[in-house]
Amino acid sequence: MTDMTNQSFDLAHLGHVEMLTDKFEESLDFFTRVYGLKLSGQDETSAYLRAWDDYEFATLKLTKADTTGVGHIGYRAASPEALERRVKVIEESGYKVHGWNDGDLSHGRAFRFEDPFGHVFEIYYDTVWFEAKGDDVAALKNTASAFEGAAPRRVDHLNLLSSDVTEFKRFMETCLGSRVTEYIELDNGRIGGCWFTVNNKTYDLACTEEQGGGNARLHHVTYATDQREDILRAADIFLQNGVHIETGPHKHAIQGTFFLYVWEPAGNRVELANAGARLIMAPDWKPIKWTQADRMKGQAWGLKTIESFHTHGTPPVKK
Amino acid sequence: MTDMTNQSFDLAHLGHVEMLTDKFEESLDFFTRVYGLKLSGQDETSAYLRAWDDYEFATLKLTKADTTGVGHIGYRAASPEALERRVKVIEESGYKVHGWNDGDLSHGRAFRFEDPFGHVFEIYYDTVWFEAKGDDVAALKNTASAFEGAAPRRVDHLNLLSSDVTEFKRFMETCLGSRVTEYIELDNGRIGGCWFTVNNKTYDLACTEEQGGGNARLHHVTYATDQREDILRAADIFLQNGVHIETGPHKHAIQGTFFLYVWEPAGNRVELANAGARLIMAPDWKPIKWTQADRMKGQAWGLKTIESFHTHGTPPVKK
Amino acid sequence: MTDMTNQSFDLAHLGHVEMLTDKFEESLDFFTRVYGLKLSGQDETSAYLRAWDDYEFATLKLTKADTTGVGHIGYRAASPEALERRVKVIEESGYKVHGWNDGDLSHGRAFRFEDPFGHVFEIYYDTVWFEAKGDDVAALKNTASAFEGAAPRRVDHLNLLSSDVTEFKRFMETCLGSRVTEYIELDNGRIGGCWFTVNNKTYDLACTEEQGGGNARLHHVTYATDQREDILRAADIFLQNGVHIETGPHKHAIQGTFFLYVWEPAGNRVELANAGARLIMAPDWKPIKWTQADRMKGQAWGLKTIESFHTHGTPPVKK
Amino acid sequence: MTDMTNQSFDLAHLGHVEMLTDKFEESLDFFTRVYGLKLSGQDETSAYLRAWDDYEFATLKLTKADTTGVGHIGYRAASPEALERRVKVIEESGYKVHGWNDGDLSHGRAFRFEDPFGHVFEIYYDTVWFEAKGDDVAALKNTASAFEGAAPRRVDHLNLLSSDVTEFKRFMETCLGSRVTEYIELDNGRIGGCWFTVNNKTYDLACTEEQGGGNARLHHVTYATDQREDILRAADIFLQNGVHIETGPHKHAIQGTFFLYVWEPAGNRVELANAGARLIMAPDWKPIKWTQADRMKGQAWGLKTIESFHTHGTPPVKK
Repeated sequence: MTDMTNQSFDLAHLGHVEMLTDKFEESLDFFTRVYGLKLSGQDETSAYLRAWDDYEFATLKLTKADTTGVGHIGYRAASPEALERRVKVIEESGYKVHGWNDGDLSHGRAFRFEDPFGHVFEIYYDTVWFEAKGDDVAALKNTASAFEGAAPRRVDHLNLLSSDVTEFKRFMETCLGSRVTEYIELDNGRIGGCWFTVNNKTYDLACTEEQGGGNARLHHVTYATDQREDILRAADIFLQNGVHIETGPHKHAIQGTFFLYVWEPAGNRVELANAGARLIMAPDWKPIKWTQADRMKGQAWGLKTIESFHTHGTPPVKK
Repeated sequence: MTDMTNQSFDLAHLGHVEMLTDKFEESLDFFTRVYGLKLSGQDETSAYLRAWDDYEFATLKLTKADTTGVGHIGYRAASPEALERRVKVIEESGYKVHGWNDGDLSHGRAFRFEDPFGHVFEIYYDTVWFEAKGDDVAALKNTASAFEGAAPRRVDHLNLLSSDVTEFKRFMETCLGSRVTEYIELDNGRIGGCWFTVNNKTYDLACTEEQGGGNARLHHVTYATDQREDILRAADIFLQNGVHIETGPHKHAIQGTFFLYVWEPAGNRVELANAGARLIMAPDWKPIKWTQADRMKGQAWGLKTIESFHTHGTPPVKK
Repeated sequence: MTDMTNQSFDLAHLGHVEMLTDKFEESLDFFTRVYGLKLSGQDETSAYLRAWDDYEFATLKLTKADTTGVGHIGYRAASPEALERRVKVIEESGYKVHGWNDGDLSHGRAFRFEDPFGHVFEIYYDTVWFEAKGDDVAALKNTASAFEGAAPRRVDHLNLLSSDVTEFKRFMETCLGSRVTEYIELDNGRIGGCWFTVNNKTYDLACTEEQGGGNARLHHVTYATDQREDILRAADIFLQNGVHIETGPHKHAIQGTFFLYVWEPAGNRVELANAGARLIMAPDWKPIKWTQADRMKGQAWGLKTIESFHTHGTPPVKK
Repeated sequence: MTDMTNQSFDLAHLGHVEMLTDKFEESLDFFTRVYGLKLSGQDETSAYLRAWDDYEFATLKLTKADTTGVGHIGYRAASPEALERRVKVIEESGYKVHGWNDGDLSHGRAFRFEDPFGHVFEIYYDTVWFEAKGDDVAALKNTASAFEGAAPRRVDHLNLLSSDVTEFKRFMETCLGSRVTEYIELDNGRIGGCWFTVNNKTYDLACTEEQGGGNARLHHVTYATDQREDILRAADIFLQNGVHIETGPHKHAIQGTFFLYVWEPAGNRVELANAGARLIMAPDWKPIKWTQADRMKGQAWGLKTIESFHTHGTPPVKK
């Protein structure tokens, strides 16, 4: 692994994910009524959603489309200067650049670019802080809005698919200045998966090898809950609401995250996760390598990874 | 509040606290058998302790003394260059400088200096990564050592007392480059308490106003558990072992941390805490102000702060 | 203590409590929207409420009144024969008898009688099993209705006040055939409190000494949650909704129950509780005696019992 | 289903299980050091174990043998009279009777008999209450002994295998006076599994169809934890100690129990379970029927039941 340690990060954190849905109303109902996000606003094509303690206006932009998958991924820069530094690096990187756009309801101007697999990223600094009103004002002034019973607290990470994880890793290190915390090295020498972060979180983006023949696909988007118990409770809520539970609750061996994966109505996979008190504090963290043999043991407590987890991504691959 | 945002941090994280005890054997028994830390090593004067997932050799240095309180506080720098930058700033700051020392069993050379109230700090980069052996090797390679049933996962923060929190804040911002996330503003205009961080944690050091007439005193040292349930269980363990439970479990209004405070045998206050999924992700976080009226409401769920919490610190003040 | 062991019980369980409110709309809003009960039905004077896994149509009958407190307490008999046996015992007991009534929306005919302090009890066998419809049908057929996110699961117990707990104990043993599991013996020889059960639950009714000069007053009504975490979450929900949190979450020394007490809008005290896996299995259980000195230690983890807990009951005492 | 409701029970609760092991030292180490039981005593052939809040001297009798599986199952009667009533019923039942034995370190004389599949039962009233000494005395006098960090609280149930569950059900209803709370009806009309109780617990004994060709085999023995979190924590403890985790943590659809199954060193399957606040309170409970189609859906949150769960029992079947 390239040594990515001891650097400072220009990007502060994952800001938002634009998710495409061809069942907009059903997806919006799922995210607000069942999954527990709040609707901050809507424009002609999109609903802007956030968890109750996300400070930005939106961390999930749900957009009407004739397909599913990810529209774009937004990272917020640490400062205006850091944004400019990062833009310059990207412009000189040789990766495909889309250039500046005006932003939307949730943030100001943003610089867009693309990874070699077709996923569109943007970085921005100017953002819209969410301002709670009325009953949505939090009882405690250090939380962004009213606590909701069994809902996730903040956006956590997303997982993208690519046909060449090593190449994707080069993109993440170059364009986002991300650091690898854990990765899978297959017996054939390829990297099977890679977990990245730009801060003390254990990861904010993961990339795993595309095994379904698709391009620019999404594996899943994840929000974080305060406690593992919230996820056990959510499992009952999903069950009660007829949501397809793909796998979990269980604990990942990689990253040690307690997880639950479901499919929202349009087929996009979404996760609820809890990392406990785990953070990456060491500035010289040594990326953890997992071998193919390690992976054969299943997840932490022995659950075998189910087949659809390896093949299902959005949008579906046309046959 | 001074605007401390949009800066990058030279310090990576709180590394360790040296705690003094005049009941060394009892304190060591408490920390290893009841509180759940692991003993990494010992030298003539000190025991080196860590939580099961702390990556450094020691995060608590328990030292034989004829008094109690804090010996020194160590922060790890983000890189050798960041360490040099920070040393230069401190040398030019006018604060009292002790200079370089050779380190100890747990880390390499460190630069020491002192706040105006007598608390000694050190910063260092070279450290000793803990290497688990035998039964202590973790089943999952991404954790530092074997999981212990009901024990805290990593060092979290400490709380110091000072007679002038505004002055202490200037010290922290100047010497450590820390950022304020929340603070108390008393009706008399003084800052009653201030919570600092050098990373995405909500705080790694707090300072509250000394009300007992002491100098350089410690309020408490805290380790983080994965779940709130670990703290409820720990309360039963403390009860069973005759430990003095001062207050909790309950939830702080400030910072929203779930807490439990006990006194170790020599009288130093130690806490177990869980912050849920809360992190400070915004690079332009606006410090939260709590008024005296806010504080009158008690903790989050209404518990009145007990008197000893305002007056007990270590070492005790001689009358 | 009288030996109440080795007997079989004619009564199966606490069935329901009728709670009086002089703020009917506010109370109903609280119980359905905040506390998490479900509305089974309404008649002219009352709303019939139940927790999501209560099998009967109602476990809380909320009744419009010009006062607060308890209307009556209903226990379900184990069989028609057991009901007849019990009625005969009560008729011969000398306690005040109200006689048979026709029941209400939630159960068939019931036999009413009264303790020496004015609390009205009824026993019945014919009941109305709740039948869930539509979205309220549970995903798992072994639960009574749809799981609700952070809501209590079933009715648990109530606590009444009386000026002579020893006399109340005689009433409970005689009329209900209840068994004492734990009790407080004051230094003056009086029983300060007594916990009763007619099954394997640790208690379904408690009686504590009236210290406010009232008659026939209610101390609190309690529902049980599946996990302690549900209670911590509920505390945040109560906080967010401006509910008066009186004390908790904490763990009782007596009975070891994890508790949280709040006041509903009309002032009746209600609790959420979790007893963990504790049950009274021993047929020859020896009642646990708590002394006044034991009580001075506070609750399990040291919390001092707050003053209002000793004095507040409903209805309030007129001065 | 035969109507078993409205009856009173002569038996109070499941008292203990005698488990056979051909790896006595390893099994004893597992149960005391990893699974979290306490050793009450030992005689030449057996170790007597209990959970920290079991009131009897032993709830698991671990016996040296040249095989594995269950030695016998003990139920405690509700009174001496109830014991005599039950003995008379059994003597007249036609089932195989072993007669009275003198008991052992944990209880007095017991009456033994046998089901048609070779499982040996005994019923007794005279028992040995556990008396904690020294450090094992509980801090709270209403618990049986000192709280242990991550350990189960009390014995819960066992699961036996039989080639004809309908026949086994007749045995349980006749000899033990048990009540069926839930059962599986296969498409071929046979009962695939049946859950029994003699009190308010949802079940204390389950019987599922033998699919491995064995006789008198044990499927598993289970202890109850206070919270689901204890089971998640135990999973990490089992992982750390190299214990074979067969399946879980997950939630059963049948009975709704949160479960985790592991194999102790000799191969006997043991479970940790948490039923939340669920109890069977209704005296006229209608047994819940699960069809083969229901079972095809997997456990509550969709986990498919793994193959070994259907075939592994102890002792193993000789080929």
